[in-house]
Amino acid sequence: MPTPISELFETDEFVRRHIGPAPADVEHMLSTLGVGSTEELLDQTLPPSIRSTEPLALGEAVPEVEALRRLRVLADKNEQVTSLIGMGYTGTITPPVIARNVLENPAWYTAYTPYQPEISQGRLEAILNFQTVVTELTGLDVANASLLDEGTAAAEAMTMARRQSKAKTQRFFVHHDTHPQTLAVLHTRAEPVGVELVVGDVDLLDDEAGVFGALFSTPTSSGAVVDWTAAIERVHELGGVAAVVTDPLACVLATPPGRMGADIAVGSAQRFGVPMGFGGPHAAFVAAREKAARSMPGRIVGVSTDTAGRPALRLALQTREQHIRREKATSNICTAQVLLANIAGLYAAWHGPEGLRRIAERVQRLTSIAAAGLRAGGLDVVNDSWFDTLTVRVDDVDEAVASALDAGFNIRRSADSVGITFDETSTLDTVAAIVTALGGTPVDDGGLDEAPDGLTSSLRRSDDFMTQSVFARYHSEHEMLRYLRRLSDKDLALDRTMIPLGSCTMKLNATSEMVPITWPEFADIHPFAPDDQTVGYREMIADLEQRLATITGYDAVSVQPNAGSQGEFAGLLAIRAFHRSQGDDQRTVCLIPESAHGTNAASAVMAGFDVVVVACDDAGNVDVDDLESKIDGVADQLGALMITYPSTHGVFETAVGDICARVHDAGGQVYVDGANLNALVGLAQPGKFGADVSHLNLHKTFCIPHGGGGPGVGPVGVREHLRPFLPGHPLRSDAAVGAVSAAPHGSAGILPIPWMYLEMMGGAGLTQATEVAIIAANYIAARLDEHYPVLYRGEHGRVAHECIVDLRTITKDTGVSVDDVAKRLMDYGFHAPTMSFPVAGTLMIEPTESETVREIDRFCDAMIAIRTEIERVASGEWAIDDSPLRHAPHTSEELLGDWERPYSRELGAFPVDGLRQAKYFPPVSRIDGAYGDRNLVCSCEPLEALARPAAPVG
Amino acid sequence: MPTPISELFETDEFVRRHIGPAPADVEHMLSTLGVGSTEELLDQTLPPSIRSTEPLALGEAVPEVEALRRLRVLADKNEQVTSLIGMGYTGTITPPVIARNVLENPAWYTAYTPYQPEISQGRLEAILNFQTVVTELTGLDVANASLLDEGTAAAEAMTMARRQSKAKTQRFFVHHDTHPQTLAVLHTRAEPVGVELVVGDVDLLDDEAGVFGALFSTPTSSGAVVDWTAAIERVHELGGVAAVVTDPLACVLATPPGRMGADIAVGSAQRFGVPMGFGGPHAAFVAAREKAARSMPGRIVGVSTDTAGRPALRLALQTREQHIRREKATSNICTAQVLLANIAGLYAAWHGPEGLRRIAERVQRLTSIAAAGLRAGGLDVVNDSWFDTLTVRVDDVDEAVASALDAGFNIRRSADSVGITFDETSTLDTVAAIVTALGGTPVDDGGLDEAPDGLTSSLRRSDDFMTQSVFARYHSEHEMLRYLRRLSDKDLALDRTMIPLGSCTMKLNATSEMVPITWPEFADIHPFAPDDQTVGYREMIADLEQRLATITGYDAVSVQPNAGSQGEFAGLLAIRAFHRSQGDDQRTVCLIPESAHGTNAASAVMAGFDVVVVACDDAGNVDVDDLESKIDGVADQLGALMITYPSTHGVFETAVGDICARVHDAGGQVYVDGANLNALVGLAQPGKFGADVSHLNLHKTFCIPHGGGGPGVGPVGVREHLRPFLPGHPLRSDAAVGAVSAAPHGSAGILPIPWMYLEMMGGAGLTQATEVAIIAANYIAARLDEHYPVLYRGEHGRVAHECIVDLRTITKDTGVSVDDVAKRLMDYGFHAPTMSFPVAGTLMIEPTESETVREIDRFCDAMIAIRTEIERVASGEWAIDDSPLRHAPHTSEELLGDWERPYSRELGAFPVDGLRQAKYFPPVSRIDGAYGDRNLVCSCEPLEALARPAAPVG
Repeated sequence: MPTPISELFETDEFVRRHIGPAPADVEHMLSTLGVGSTEELLDQTLPPSIRSTEPLALGEAVPEVEALRRLRVLADKNEQVTSLIGMGYTGTITPPVIARNVLENPAWYTAYTPYQPEISQGRLEAILNFQTVVTELTGLDVANASLLDEGTAAAEAMTMARRQSKAKTQRFFVHHDTHPQTLAVLHTRAEPVGVELVVGDVDLLDDEAGVFGALFSTPTSSGAVVDWTAAIERVHELGGVAAVVTDPLACVLATPPGRMGADIAVGSAQRFGVPMGFGGPHAAFVAAREKAARSMPGRIVGVSTDTAGRPALRLALQTREQHIRREKATSNICTAQVLLANIAGLYAAWHGPEGLRRIAERVQRLTSIAAAGLRAGGLDVVNDSWFDTLTVRVDDVDEAVASALDAGFNIRRSADSVGITFDETSTLDTVAAIVTALGGTPVDDGGLDEAPDGLTSSLRRSDDFMTQSVFARYHSEHEMLRYLRRLSDKDLALDRTMIPLGSCTMKLNATSEMVPITWPEFADIHPFAPDDQTVGYREMIADLEQRLATITGYDAVSVQPNAGSQGEFAGLLAIRAFHRSQGDDQRTVCLIPESAHGTNAASAVMAGFDVVVVACDDAGNVDVDDLESKIDGVADQLGALMITYPSTHGVFETAVGDICARVHDAGGQVYVDGANLNALVGLAQPGKFGADVSHLNLHKTFCIPHGGGGPGVGPVGVREHLRPFLPGHPLRSDAAVGAVSAAPHGSAGILPIPWMYLEMMGGAGLTQATEVAIIAANYIAARLDEHYPVLYRGEHGRVAHECIVDLRTITKDTGVSVDDVAKRLMDYGFHAPTMSFPVAGTLMIEPTESETVREIDRFCDAMIAIRTEIERVASGEWAIDDSPLRHAPHTSEELLGDWERPYSRELGAFPVDGLRQAKYFPPVSRIDGAYGDRNLVCSCEPLEALARPAAPVG
Repeated sequence: MPTPISELFETDEFVRRHIGPAPADVEHMLSTLGVGSTEELLDQTLPPSIRSTEPLALGEAVPEVEALRRLRVLADKNEQVTSLIGMGYTGTITPPVIARNVLENPAWYTAYTPYQPEISQGRLEAILNFQTVVTELTGLDVANASLLDEGTAAAEAMTMARRQSKAKTQRFFVHHDTHPQTLAVLHTRAEPVGVELVVGDVDLLDDEAGVFGALFSTPTSSGAVVDWTAAIERVHELGGVAAVVTDPLACVLATPPGRMGADIAVGSAQRFGVPMGFGGPHAAFVAAREKAARSMPGRIVGVSTDTAGRPALRLALQTREQHIRREKATSNICTAQVLLANIAGLYAAWHGPEGLRRIAERVQRLTSIAAAGLRAGGLDVVNDSWFDTLTVRVDDVDEAVASALDAGFNIRRSADSVGITFDETSTLDTVAAIVTALGGTPVDDGGLDEAPDGLTSSLRRSDDFMTQSVFARYHSEHEMLRYLRRLSDKDLALDRTMIPLGSCTMKLNATSEMVPITWPEFADIHPFAPDDQTVGYREMIADLEQRLATITGYDAVSVQPNAGSQGEFAGLLAIRAFHRSQGDDQRTVCLIPESAHGTNAASAVMAGFDVVVVACDDAGNVDVDDLESKIDGVADQLGALMITYPSTHGVFETAVGDICARVHDAGGQVYVDGANLNALVGLAQPGKFGADVSHLNLHKTFCIPHGGGGPGVGPVGVREHLRPFLPGHPLRSDAAVGAVSAAPHGSAGILPIPWMYLEMMGGAGLTQATEVAIIAANYIAARLDEHYPVLYRGEHGRVAHECIVDLRTITKDTGVSVDDVAKRLMDYGFHAPTMSFPVAGTLMIEPTESETVREIDRFCDAMIAIRTEIERVASGEWAIDDSPLRHAPHTSEELLGDWERPYSRELGAFPVDGLRQAKYFPPVSRIDGAYGDRNLVCSCEPLEALARPAAPVG
C-alpha cells in the first residue's frame, strides 16, 4: 500500500521552517521541564480563564510558493501609474547595489536597535551618515536617527518648540500651504495636549496672542520655494521657535532652513532612494540647533570612544528617552526608520554632492520646462517659484485629472487646481506628455534651455555641503558593495546568532515574507493614488486587519499607526474619544503599573491623560489592592488602565480577568499593550478576556524585521464600541479621531510581511509557534535557574514566553554587572538579552519559537560558562577590573597586542571551543557612553581622522 | 543661463559605476606612467596595425533603470507555461532562503574558483556537500565538483570508460532510450576522437566486435525505470566500463546505479532547486568507483589538513587537470557549475533525506495516478515502470500537444507519442488537468491511493542515504540562513576585496546585471518550450550574439558552448569541418605556442587534432622562426594555429598580423583564444586582424560572475566561411557540426548578464573600460617593478591588461616562494594573483577596469610591504621557515595561541594598519595538498568528527 498522496503534500512545510525545534526537540524540552505534553505545560502556564476554547480560525497553512502566488494575484490588482502627485512622495531610484545588499540583505534587515553599540558599529556608521546628510542639507547642527514620517516629525517639531519656547501661550502657527496630511497629524497631536493650532498666512503672526512656535514649508505644498527669513524673525521676536518643513532634494539647490534662521527642520528622506510603498515606511528627519540637541525626540547616534581610545559610535543622550523618563518624557517615539534612513544616507553617499546637484537641477529644469510649456498654452501656473512642483489652475479639475490619467499620469487634485510634481525618474518625455495632457504647449527642443528657472538666484544656496569623505569615496559599485559588506560585517544580526532580547521577540524574518516588499507592484505605489489603482493593496490590508482582529479577538483593527508608539497613542485616543462621546470628558486618568514600558506613560500623556502609577507585588504582578485603592481614589476620573499581558515580568498574571472587570466596573477602559502577543496568539485573545483596545507590534510577533531600529508597524485593535474612534485620514474620510500617521495605511509597503506570515502559518501553525515560544522560554528558565535565579514565575512556577534572570546578588557579591555579562556574551558570539528592564540588575531572555534547541543550548552553555567565569572573580582568582568579564568585549587588536592579564588571550577570544573556527570579533571594545554625551558629535567626519596613531609593529 | 538640460541626464552613469577610477584617478595613473594621455599610452601598447579605426558600433550607454526596463520588455515576450516536457529539465522550487542568500548574494556569486583553498573553505564545504549528495544518491564512491550538463557529462563518462577499459575496440554502446540531446553531444564528442557509437538495444552488446563501454539510462528518456544489472554484467564481461545516466530524485526511491554494478553515473542536479533557465546553467554530476577517482574529469574537492592539523578542504588531484597535462589531458573541462552545484547540495541539506523522500514519492505517486487515469481512459501508456515520466501513444501527436497546451501545459512531442513528466511543483490538479486534456479519465479522489505504483519493490532502494549530519541540521530557516552566512564568511570574494587574478578578469558583476536572472520570465522556461513561448529569450540571444560579433569583428557567434572549454572545442570543430568540406581531411595539425593555456591543447586533441608546440622567444612572444619551421614541417597537414591575444604573457605581440597571414598562406586557420578579450574590446577585433575563429569568456570580459568556479559561458565567434560549422542541436536543425551542449542556447539563463552589461556600457563605455584596464595594469607594473621585476613587456615597454611579476630571483636568493607571497597576501586581506602561470615562479596580476586607484594602491602597498618582509628573510633576521611569509596565512587561533616566533602576533595579523578594524582571518592555515591526495576523502563526514580535540584554555 503506497503512502497516501495526501500525506505527501506538506502544506505546513513553512511552519516547520519557521519553528526552530523539530518535534523531537520539543519532546526533549518538555521532558527537561518534567511535563508530559505541551498541554500540560500550558495548563501550568496560562490561567484557564483566559484560554481560548476554539482553535484560531485562520485556515490552513499554505506553502511558501503558493502563498507567494496568492500575494502575486493581489499585487497584480495594483496598477503602476507614473505618479506626479507629489505631496511628499515621489518616484525615486533605489540604487540596485543598495537595494540588493541592504534592503534585501538579512545582515541589515534582521539587526536590532543598536543598544549594544559594540556589535552595531556598522549600522551606527550608516545612521551617522544619514544624520550628516540631514544636517548638511538643512543647514542645521544636529539631526536625529530618523522619525516616522513628515507628519509626525512636524508634530515632534511642534512639541519641541513648546518645550524650548519661553512664550506664554499654547498657540502654534502653521502656514496654510503645508501638506494636508501633515496638517492633519498636527491637529491630532495638538488637541489632546492643549495646543491651539493657528493655521493661515503669516499675517496671523501679528496677532497679539502670540505663538510659541511656527511651522513653514519650503517648497510649500503647492510648490513655491519661499525664503521664510522674515517670518522666522517675527517668530523669534514673539519668543517662539521656528520650524521649517523641507525637502532634502530641494535643499541641494535652494537656501536651506538653517540659513533662513530656522531652529528646526523636518521632512521626509523618501526620495533619497526609498520606494513610495503606498505611504511608507520612509525615514523622516528632524534637525535642530546644537543647543536643542538634548530636547530632540527619538534616537541620536553620536561619536564616543572605547576603552582603547578608538572612536566608537553609540546612541547618544539616551536618558532623554521615554523608556527612562516615562510620563515626564517629551515624546513617545521609540522606533526610528533605521533601515530606510540607512538607505537614504547611502543613496547620498552613492551620488555624492555632485550627483545630487545634477539630479536636483534636472528636476528643477524639467519643472521649469513644464512651467514654460503650460504658460505657453495659456495655463495659469499659480506658483512663481518652484523646485519640482507646479500648481495649475484649471476650469475643470476632473477633466484635467482624467486627461492626465489618459496620458499615463496621476496628478494632484485640489479644489480649483491640479498639482504636478517631477522627480528623479522624470524625463523630457514626461514633461511633454503631461504638458500636452493639461492643454499646454510643450517647449520645443530648441527652447528647452530658455525656459525660466523656478529658483531665482536669491533663492539658491551657494555653499558647499557634504564635503565629508564618505560622500566622495563610494561612487563606484565595487567600492559601495565593499563598504556595505564592511559595515554589515561589524554587526551581529539574526543571520549570525539568536538575539534573545526579552520583550523584543526577535524571531525569524523569513525570506519569502521579505521578497514581496520589493515587488514594484507594492513598492512603487503612491499613497494617494486613486482607489482603482490600489485594489490589491487595499484587499491585502483589509484581509490583514481582519486576521489580526481574529487573532486578538477584537472587532476592528487599523494598521495606520506606523510604530508601536503610534499604536499606543491611537488606542488611547480612541478611549479618550469614547469617553467624550459618552459625555465623560472628565475621565482623564490612566492607571499604569510600575512594571510598564516607559512608552506607555509617555503615550498616555500625549493622548491627554494624567498618569497614576499602580504598584506591583513581589511576584511582579499588579498589586490588586493598590489597584483597588487607586481606582477608588480617582473615582469618576478613571479613564483607562494600561497593562501589558503577559506582563513585562514575563508572567501570565492569573488575576488579569478580574483586573479588567474591576476597571470596567469603575467606568474605565482597559488597554492591553500587545508587546507580548507572541505568548498569546492562538491561546488567548485580549479582546475576549477583558481588554477594550490593544496595539500590536508587527515587527515583533508578526515578523517584520527590526531593520536595525525600525521600521515597525503598530496596528491598533479595538472592540466594537471603539471602532468609530480608530484613526482617520484627511484624504480618506472624516473620522472622529484624526490621522496619527501621514499615510492612510501607515507603512503599507511592509504589510506583505505579516500577510505572508499569517498565510504560511495558518491558525494551527501560529498556535504551535506560541506554544513552542513558551516551551523554549521555560526550557531556558530551567537550564539557567541554578546558575542565575529566575526572578518571576507564575502561580505554577512557569514563565510565559520570556524569563528574567536575576544578577543582583551576583553583582553585590562579585561586582560583575549585567553590563559585564552582556558584553562578555559578545565574545561568545551573542547579542545580549534585554538589560535591566523591567528590573534593574536583571537580564530578560526571550528565545522565540524560531530558535532550535541547538542554538538555545549554545546560548545557555555560554551563560553557564560565563557563570564559571564569575566564580573565578568570586574566588578572588581574578580582580573584577582585570577579568575577562570587565574587559569584554575583546577586539582582535587587544587580544593580539601587549598582554598582561591574568587570563590567556585564548580564554579572551575562545572561551568555548566552537568559536575557534567561526569567531566574530567586535570592531571596538567597551564604549564609554558618558564621554560621548559630554562631547556630543552627531555627524561624520572620517572616523580615521579621529583614530589614534597606529602602534608600531614588529 | 541654466545648465543645459542635456547635460543633466547622465546616460553613462553606469559606465562611471562600473569603471572604478574616476577621471582624476585616470589622470593620476597616466602621469605616474609618464604619458600625457590615454591615447599616448595606447600608442605605446597596441600595435598600430591591429587598432580599430572606427568606434565600436554598439550605440549609446543606457542607464541601469532604462536597461532593466528594456530587458523587461524582452522578458515579457516569454510565456511561462507549466512544462511537463521533462527530458532532463523539470520545474523545481529554489528554497527562498537559498535563492536570496546564495544565488542573489555577491559573497557567493562573485567568488573565484577555490584554487586558494585557505580563503575558500566555505564554498569548498558546500561543494563537498554536493559531492556527498551525488555519491549517496548514485551509490558510488566519489563524485566531482560538477560538470556542465548531462550531455557533456555522458561524453566525459564515455572518455573515462575508454581510458579505463582494457577492451581493444573503439566501440561505445549507448542505449537508444537516452535523451536525444545527450545522444547528440555523444555523437559530437565521439567522432573526432575515433569512437564509434553503437546506439540500440542491449542485444547489440552480443555483437562480437565488443565495446569499451556502455551507457544506459534509468529512468530512460521515455520514462521507464530499469534495473540494468544484467546488461552491466555483460559489459563487464566484454572488458567494458558501464555508465548509467540517472536522475538524482529518482535515485531517492529507485535502486541507484551503484547498486546495479555501474562503474560511473552521470546526470543533472537541475531539479534540486536550480531554475530551468531555458537550458542552463545547471550542475551535472559524475560519480565513479574509488579506483577511478584519478581519471575523473573536472574538479574534485577533497579533505586534507592544514599546518595545525585542522581538517581543511581543497581541490584534490589537480595534477590530473588539463592545465597541467595539456595535450595529454583526458578532458578539457575547467569550469564547473559550482554556484549551481552549491544550490543543489544546499537544497538536499534543506530537505534532508526525509524531505527528499517525500518529494520523490509524491512525484512518483502523481505519475502513478496519471498513469491510472490515462489507462482508465483507454490510452496506451507505453512504459510499465516509471518514476516521473509517462510515454503515451497517441494517434495524432499535434492534436495531443495542442490539447495539452490549451489546458496550460507543454508536453514532449515524439513521432507517435507524447511524454509527460511531473515534478516537485506538480499537484493533483496538474495530474487531473493533463489526464483530461489527453483524453484520459482522471482518478477520483477515493481511488487516488489505489493507482498502481510505477516502481515495483524490486526496483526500489531500501538502504539509508544522506545520513551525514549536514543533511539533518539545516531544516529550519534560521539554521540554514546562519549556515550560509558562516560558509560565506569563511571566503574572500569580490564583495570584500579586489581579486587580481591574471587571465581571469575578475571585474565587477554589477547588481543590475544579476537581477534579471532570477526573474521568473527568464528562470522558469524549459529549453524545449515551443518557439512562440520563447520569443523574448531568442530575441535577446540573437541580439547578444550580434553584439558580440560586432565587438570581435566576426560574422557569426553562437552562445551554445556553456564554458570556455566548450567554446574552444566548438571553434576547433568548426575549423576541422571546414577543412573537410574543402576535401582537406588531412589538415589535422594544430600549432600551439608553449605559453598557451593547457586547455587549448586538450581541446585540440578532443577535436581530433594533433598538437605541435611552437616555441616562444625570451620576450614571451611566439618565436616566428620556430613557427615558420613548424609550418613548413607539417606542410599540408596544417589545420590551425591556436594563439591567445594579447598573449598569456600579458603582452600585445606586434607580429600577430604577420603570424596570422603566414598561417593562412599555408592553408591553415587561425584560432585566437578570447581569454584576454578584456584588453581588446573597442580597440581591436580578432575577426579583423587575421583570426578565423575565437571563443570568448562571458564570465571574464562580459561580467558573468565566476560563481566560485562556474558557471561560465564560452561563445564561439567565426568569420563567414565558418558560419555553417557552428554547433547545431537535434531539437533545432540539422547542422554540419553537432551539439556541443545539451541545450540549444547553452546556459541561456545567465545571458541577461552580458546583455545588460553591453546595454549599460554602450560602445564608448566598453572602449573606455578596456583603456582603463590597460592603464591600471601598466600602473601596477610601474608601481611594482622596482620591488618585483615585471617579466614581459611589449616593444615600447608596456604591458597589456595584466602584468607578470617575477619572483624567481627572490625565491633563489631567499627561499620565499610565490606560494609564500600568495598566502601572505591573505593576511593582508587579498586574494592572490595567478600563481606560476604561464611561467613558474611568477605572479600574474590583472586589476581590470573596475578597481579604484584606492584599491589598486592598497594592493600594491601590500605587495611592497611583503617585499620588505622578504628583505628581513634575506637579511637573515628571520629564517624563512619561521617567517610570517612561510607561516602565512595566520588564523586567529594560531595568533592567539602559544607564540614563540621571531615576529610579533600583531605583525602576523596587522602588517598594515588598515587591517586593525576590518580584518579577515582565514579559518585554516596553509593546507597540505599532497596529504589530501594521498588520503583521498571526497565526501563529507562532519568536519568536527575529524577535528583534533580542543586545547584547554585558561
